[in-house]
Amino acid sequence: MRIPKGCAEGHSPFAGCVRVSLTKKNIYFLSFFLGEGQAHQPRQADQNNQMTKSKDQYSLGILTISDAGSKGEREDTSGDAIAKIMTDLGFRLALRDIVPDEPDLISERLRDWSDGGEVDVVLTTGGTGLGPRDITPEATRAVIELEVPGIAEAMRMLTIESTPMAMLSRSVAGIRAGCLIVNLPGSPKAVRETLAIAIQAIPHALEMIRGWRTHPVE
Amino acid sequence: MRIPKGCAEGHSPFAGCVRVSLTKKNIYFLSFFLGEGQAHQPRQADQNNQMTKSKDQYSLGILTISDAGSKGEREDTSGDAIAKIMTDLGFRLALRDIVPDEPDLISERLRDWSDGGEVDVVLTTGGTGLGPRDITPEATRAVIELEVPGIAEAMRMLTIESTPMAMLSRSVAGIRAGCLIVNLPGSPKAVRETLAIAIQAIPHALEMIRGWRTHPVE
Amino acid sequence: MRIPKGCAEGHSPFAGCVRVSLTKKNIYFLSFFLGEGQAHQPRQADQNNQMTKSKDQYSLGILTISDAGSKGEREDTSGDAIAKIMTDLGFRLALRDIVPDEPDLISERLRDWSDGGEVDVVLTTGGTGLGPRDITPEATRAVIELEVPGIAEAMRMLTIESTPMAMLSRSVAGIRAGCLIVNLPGSPKAVRETLAIAIQAIPHALEMIRGWRTHPVE
Repeated sequence: MRIPKGCAEGHSPFAGCVRVSLTKKNIYFLSFFLGEGQAHQPRQADQNNQMTKSKDQYSLGILTISDAGSKGEREDTSGDAIAKIMTDLGFRLALRDIVPDEPDLISERLRDWSDGGEVDVVLTTGGTGLGPRDITPEATRAVIELEVPGIAEAMRMLTIESTPMAMLSRSVAGIRAGCLIVNLPGSPKAVRETLAIAIQAIPHALEMIRGWRTHPVE
Repeated sequence: MRIPKGCAEGHSPFAGCVRVSLTKKNIYFLSFFLGEGQAHQPRQADQNNQMTKSKDQYSLGILTISDAGSKGEREDTSGDAIAKIMTDLGFRLALRDIVPDEPDLISERLRDWSDGGEVDVVLTTGGTGLGPRDITPEATRAVIELEVPGIAEAMRMLTIESTPMAMLSRSVAGIRAGCLIVNLPGSPKAVRETLAIAIQAIPHALEMIRGWRTHPVE
Repeated sequence: MRIPKGCAEGHSPFAGCVRVSLTKKNIYFLSFFLGEGQAHQPRQADQNNQMTKSKDQYSLGILTISDAGSKGEREDTSGDAIAKIMTDLGFRLALRDIVPDEPDLISERLRDWSDGGEVDVVLTTGGTGLGPRDITPEATRAVIELEVPGIAEAMRMLTIESTPMAMLSRSVAGIRAGCLIVNLPGSPKAVRETLAIAIQAIPHALEMIRGWRTHPVE
């Protein structure tokens, strides 16, 4: 198995790339992931789709959930990490915000962003642990119409060898109004590790999900 | 680790066997699986059980969920793949049908088949993805009395190295009226890969489940 | 990767250590696990916490679920296995009991123990399979306030290579009143295998959960 070229040359969007690439499984995943990224260029087939948004790119929302961050007391380094990785891969950053760990505020933002139709995928960061203020999974589950359990399972199970604490993440992934919502953990390191897993399926997921917007259910 | 004999000689029920056997983990699973299959012969202990169905074999229902298939516009190659694998392993094919991706029709068929007592296990194929017509998991969850999350988790997590898209399958497995119901994906290739995982636990699951029929809960 | 020292010298709390250590992945996990155990000594930071319980140790409850065991017809070897492993690691055994496979009795005991504040973690054994009397997961889910799906997923997915039947365990893990509850399977062998996985995250989980007791939610 080949080490992904971008990684060896230091051009990977993952800062933690060198460390991550130490295991065979992760090399596999990164190489697959970089392949996905390349495949994610504008394609002929896209010219004729009926979506109202940009034909060329999937658009992204980043929602950071952090009490300290929402008061401006902490830099949003995790949100920054997501933005860098995803824009490097060709996603267009359309919406970004920070809210405190309040279930109603989180749910409201996810509902507005999904129903607004401006973003194809929302990645959240923070609030997935076991503390009394960690309620992102509940706030997400309250608004999604369809859960996609395998994305969260994969983020946990495929990072557990390097990070046993991954089993404590309660991340949820699901779909609302044709928008894919995925909870990522709160630290930049954990964001990079889990996003490297989820991104392998996100572009394909977005293609499958298109039908929800082009053929809305009554 | 030994390559399963049936596989090397091309007698495996899995058409994709040679490809699958390229990884050590899959070789392990296939060898275990073939062992399970052999162990699944009529046994002395079975002579005295109180079940009304055949003492010698577990019986199987195959339910294909496909709009096109139900109108006769597409061949049921996935259902055929399941039938070949399972009958080669000694299961008796008792019921088989194709229904469109309509939740009520799917739930009704699963309910009738389970409650009828004619089949020990029902394998469905199709409708587990993320499109607006993919509602097999919901239709299944609506009728099962007990969910067995590990079967679906295993089908996703153990095929993800070769097929990252496996994390998008929303398959559900569970029990109704002493009948095990397992959702498999829609393509023949994915059916073979996931059934190779699930089959390792199905015979043992059916033994544990027997109690539900011989000692019905009030 | 180094073989954990305790293991090589036969001092591991896991009787099945030598067998388990045959695979690289398991060696990794055991070494990590033993590291966790060592880190679990009294720490300076603990001197100032506001918890009413012992500052030095986490306290443990063991609840065995077994019809035969509750009538004294079977020795509680699985409960014994848990007690040995956990006390060797520095946990203090505070509560232990055996109840029959009755959902109300199980839920009541878990509720009383969690709400009583005497134990930080409750490990149950038994009743996680597919038989008509296996209702520990349902009885647990009925009392937890927060589910931690990754612990149960990890116990299943990381033991499945050596024990494919692991996919049939319906174990649940979650939190009630600041107490972590984890369902383990019913046999001593399965207890050892799954606890070797869960223990890697339990001490860290307990640290994260503390907030629930020191800052109770209204």
